[in-house]
Amino acid sequence: MTPDDAAPRAPRGRALSAGALAQSLGGVVEGDAERLVDGLCGLVEATARDLSFCSGERYVEDLRATCAGIVLATSECVQLAGRSRGPTYIVVADPFVAYARAAEEFAFPASTPRGVHRTAILGARVVLGDGAAIDAYAVIGDDVAIGACSTIGAGAVVEQGVMMGRDVSVGPRVVICEGTRIGDRVRVLAGAILGSEGFGFVRDGELHRKIPQRGILIVEDDVEIGANTAIARGASGPTRIRRGTKIDNLVQIGHNVSVGERCLLAGQAGVAGSSVLEDDVVLAGQVGVADHLRVGRGVVAAAQTGIVGNIEAGTTVSGYPAIPHGLARRVYAVRKRLPELLHRITALEDAVRRFSKTPTPE
Amino acid sequence: MTPDDAAPRAPRGRALSAGALAQSLGGVVEGDAERLVDGLCGLVEATARDLSFCSGERYVEDLRATCAGIVLATSECVQLAGRSRGPTYIVVADPFVAYARAAEEFAFPASTPRGVHRTAILGARVVLGDGAAIDAYAVIGDDVAIGACSTIGAGAVVEQGVMMGRDVSVGPRVVICEGTRIGDRVRVLAGAILGSEGFGFVRDGELHRKIPQRGILIVEDDVEIGANTAIARGASGPTRIRRGTKIDNLVQIGHNVSVGERCLLAGQAGVAGSSVLEDDVVLAGQVGVADHLRVGRGVVAAAQTGIVGNIEAGTTVSGYPAIPHGLARRVYAVRKRLPELLHRITALEDAVRRFSKTPTPE
Amino acid sequence: MTPDDAAPRAPRGRALSAGALAQSLGGVVEGDAERLVDGLCGLVEATARDLSFCSGERYVEDLRATCAGIVLATSECVQLAGRSRGPTYIVVADPFVAYARAAEEFAFPASTPRGVHRTAILGARVVLGDGAAIDAYAVIGDDVAIGACSTIGAGAVVEQGVMMGRDVSVGPRVVICEGTRIGDRVRVLAGAILGSEGFGFVRDGELHRKIPQRGILIVEDDVEIGANTAIARGASGPTRIRRGTKIDNLVQIGHNVSVGERCLLAGQAGVAGSSVLEDDVVLAGQVGVADHLRVGRGVVAAAQTGIVGNIEAGTTVSGYPAIPHGLARRVYAVRKRLPELLHRITALEDAVRRFSKTPTPE
Repeated sequence: MTPDDAAPRAPRGRALSAGALAQSLGGVVEGDAERLVDGLCGLVEATARDLSFCSGERYVEDLRATCAGIVLATSECVQLAGRSRGPTYIVVADPFVAYARAAEEFAFPASTPRGVHRTAILGARVVLGDGAAIDAYAVIGDDVAIGACSTIGAGAVVEQGVMMGRDVSVGPRVVICEGTRIGDRVRVLAGAILGSEGFGFVRDGELHRKIPQRGILIVEDDVEIGANTAIARGASGPTRIRRGTKIDNLVQIGHNVSVGERCLLAGQAGVAGSSVLEDDVVLAGQVGVADHLRVGRGVVAAAQTGIVGNIEAGTTVSGYPAIPHGLARRVYAVRKRLPELLHRITALEDAVRRFSKTPTPE
Repeated sequence: MTPDDAAPRAPRGRALSAGALAQSLGGVVEGDAERLVDGLCGLVEATARDLSFCSGERYVEDLRATCAGIVLATSECVQLAGRSRGPTYIVVADPFVAYARAAEEFAFPASTPRGVHRTAILGARVVLGDGAAIDAYAVIGDDVAIGACSTIGAGAVVEQGVMMGRDVSVGPRVVICEGTRIGDRVRVLAGAILGSEGFGFVRDGELHRKIPQRGILIVEDDVEIGANTAIARGASGPTRIRRGTKIDNLVQIGHNVSVGERCLLAGQAGVAGSSVLEDDVVLAGQVGVADHLRVGRGVVAAAQTGIVGNIEAGTTVSGYPAIPHGLARRVYAVRKRLPELLHRITALEDAVRRFSKTPTPE
Repeated sequence: MTPDDAAPRAPRGRALSAGALAQSLGGVVEGDAERLVDGLCGLVEATARDLSFCSGERYVEDLRATCAGIVLATSECVQLAGRSRGPTYIVVADPFVAYARAAEEFAFPASTPRGVHRTAILGARVVLGDGAAIDAYAVIGDDVAIGACSTIGAGAVVEQGVMMGRDVSVGPRVVICEGTRIGDRVRVLAGAILGSEGFGFVRDGELHRKIPQRGILIVEDDVEIGANTAIARGASGPTRIRRGTKIDNLVQIGHNVSVGERCLLAGQAGVAGSSVLEDDVVLAGQVGVADHLRVGRGVVAAAQTGIVGNIEAGTTVSGYPAIPHGLARRVYAVRKRLPELLHRITALEDAVRRFSKTPTPE
């Protein structure tokens, strides 16, 4: 079998009319307000049953060609696209945001577990909120509290003393280590490890002796944590991920790190022990932050940046060691010309040497 | 217990004679055509029961010293090694390729699961091909199709709607998320996560709102995916890994990425959302590719390269931002001398200043 | 629920007096030798029930303010802090080492599994040492030997032929592949994959043919391996991690790598196939070592270093390609000034051009 190029559609949601969507999203219908859609899709792949969006003028060609039933767009894009036939429009100020908001309206059927599977193992004194669900072969330790409507995926392990709020989604094969505290609406994707021991050793003669790792991990509300990401507990006191922060796959966060609110950490980024990211920091893919540093509010680090010193709030940085991005761009441009510069310097030296040999007037 | 230096041998296969091997691999026996081997091993560790190979003249010393029963080698290497005693040779044009091909001949006993383990949980409407096997504590969702002779490792989770072809090997603790399509002869090593949600958010006032991740992941025939690697599903439309591509451990692939045929992605490489790798691209270890880029056919990126712009087909690149490898090597050579160059520039400025003070003739 | 800022205390150990601790750690009590503590904590978060430590003069302010019951400190720090009220001191030469050593004294109650859980699946001829324990849904293959007091976490998979020593701790969801050999007192954190197949392919016409991966992985005594780390087995002969080495989370180690004794590999470091790290090598976070290299004894590589050639013993390196750290620091300082240097070179060229036009005396 070769996988079919005609990719299967994701499960459909409840049918919504353009009028109803315009009302809930705060937009204006241009076209048939009765038109119904029950799915979400990009302009190129959309069918007549899908709501789509046009996020800017450079997608107007896709907008003209789309088969989507309804499209969220700015009035500028609608005008540019023309309206001979084609989709119903919902004119909004920010189509991308409206598209993201619309996802909730469809109430897509989720394949999340329901109830406690007969094979789930629950320790002593486990407290489950209303509607909490635990999937097959999950193992829940003693004294765990799981809030209402939270779900634990197949084969996940939640160790003793873990507390989590409501509407938390813990993916398959996730491990949440002893004592971790998790807020509401947190999403943990498959394979992530939360609250394992940090990497702390002290040299004691011929061996590396482990420094006691006695703290915990605190994950606040509305955090998302990606697949196979690893976040260590504190050595003493907590590691903390503050509310609204989103963390991608294969990210490493060391012990006693504090990640601020609404930060974005892209794939394979890493933050070493005890460093602090203030609010709204963005680390692009494969960025590294060394230990015991402070990265100021709103700092943006370009891909693969190596942060080895404190970074002032509001700056965009790049390179190893990190320097301001504007400077970095100019450095990169000159760096490519280094072999040429070497030649020019050598030529200058030759020229100066010739001058030196020129007899100067007495 | 300290682990024994005398490492245990891997399980032996069926015994094959030099003559039979030469016939199946297209080589010529020099020595005893009746000699039997039932295993594969490098020259240094091989025993008389092993088939080994000499991949070039710099291994002739190892060839002279080997205890291997049969060695695949070029006629040049055989001549260089001499043939007083020692192994039987099978003379072939490419010993390394022949060695890799020979693995199939031995039919090594695999420890893969057989049948459906009594503890495996199967959802509704699961279709299993002949000889498909599911190991202990694996969890298979509704509407999953698993082709003939495919095996699902212990504790793996295959979510609803997944379809996979024949002779697929899914390792222990792998998670294959909803709707993923997998071709024939695909191998997924332990702990990999296929088709989890991508990292897509749009700022909506004080929060990062998730962009609906409604696409799927398509993995074509003969792909290998390494341990603890994470590959996201598409946001809309598929993420796609084309036939014959091999992906190492701890690699991160974002949503809607398209990886071409026969690509090689080494350990800890990462490809951000919507980027396209054309066929035969090679990313060495820890290479990063930013989002929405195109990396042309046959591009090779050296270790740790940071690709932040499109790369033309056929080029070899290095550094951050990526530049042609030949240029990069010259840049690296000069870069080391930057402190020296600074001094030379300063010395030149001093010299020029002295000249400027020299009274010029009236 | 929002996670409580008042983080829960880790489980307490047995109560120990300052006098008893001073005796076992080789220190001298200053203050109340009868004072009891039953936990370990940093100066800032400690309560009266905790033993803490002051690792140097720059923490003297924290020492003055601490609520810890007993503090390990040098006599210099004790004098600087004064002793009006406050904790009992135990004066030692190296407070950090003493703190790490003290962890063993408290015998903290561990939440490690006890006995063989009823849901654990054991293959044929599995040998368990006294006090060995296997947690829920773990799967143990045929011919596995697990030493005394070793523990296998929930949902872990130990494939056939694995042998491990005593006091080994295997975390939840770990996979230990076929034939892996593990020494005594090894700790494997959650989600790690030990001994999976390496990434070895040879081009054979239109396909990448897998090179047989027939070796094993040997992990010696006192090694620690972090969460979601992946270590490949040898292709032929072993991959080897020597005694006392500590490996952090999300580290990648290729086939046939040899890591020496007492090495430290920080988060997201990677070592490609067949490379050798001699003893006491330190790789900081995100360091990469290319294949078939030798990194000499005691080499230290700064964060994100790219090692693409052999490194002499005892050197500290940085950058890509790695150069000596001292030189690298000077290079980084000049690199920032590259746009300025370009201007200075251009200005010099202008000056020299002007001189050239100056008529020289006849």
